[in-house]
Amino acid sequence: MTDQPDLAFDVFARACPSRGTLEHVTGRWGGLTLGALREGELRFNELRRRVDGVSEKMLSQTLHALERDGLVHRAAQPTNPPRVDYRLTPLGAEVAERLLGLIELVEGRMDQVLAARAAYDARPPTGR
Amino acid sequence: MTDQPDLAFDVFARACPSRGTLEHVTGRWGGLTLGALREGELRFNELRRRVDGVSEKMLSQTLHALERDGLVHRAAQPTNPPRVDYRLTPLGAEVAERLLGLIELVEGRMDQVLAARAAYDARPPTGR
Repeated sequence: MTDQPDLAFDVFARACPSRGTLEHVTGRWGGLTLGALREGELRFNELRRRVDGVSEKMLSQTLHALERDGLVHRAAQPTNPPRVDYRLTPLGAEVAERLLGLIELVEGRMDQVLAARAAYDARPPTGR
Repeated sequence: MTDQPDLAFDVFARACPSRGTLEHVTGRWGGLTLGALREGELRFNELRRRVDGVSEKMLSQTLHALERDGLVHRAAQPTNPPRVDYRLTPLGAEVAERLLGLIELVEGRMDQVLAARAAYDARPPTGR
């Protein structure tokens, strides 16, 4: 046991748990869910409307994974009918901020991306 | 046709092409591939070793999607046997930089994530 700095987590290693968390954060719905919650606390159905196209089942699974990773806080309100609010934890807010930086870059460069796709599709096919 | 600024791209809208590009960038293998190429030009088999766990087929699909989006440049060398090098385009390098910021944050906070998971798993199950 030495005092070497913690270099244990590496998403490039297939067994590292950080790879799972990265996938929860950047997966099909995880990223959009974190992005939506960055604007503030939302109820389940509000989230579902904001994350256009997500099913109830997928949103529920996504929220559970993010809650388990400590990125989203789930608060069941003692109201009748019961109400559940979701918000980012401080760690979730940090992650969402970096993720939104990436999302804004991609959105801002889509003209370039679409031009690249058009050029690619106009070329004859090649091997790998 | 007005001169309003281009606000057309929104990953939250299910039909927006930016959602597809975000998924290529952050998908299971796209992110790791961009991260690996950030260190420099690599051949297919070098990439495959670096992105631990990826199959040949998935890496090939991932590279094609990233090439089509203009993020990765593929250069077939006129050697015998033929050799194919992959490197980031300038746009791909920008995207990879933001992505690596996110990856480094996640890796650096895994102690917190694992503590949150242990606490979550110790709780009685709840509904949504």
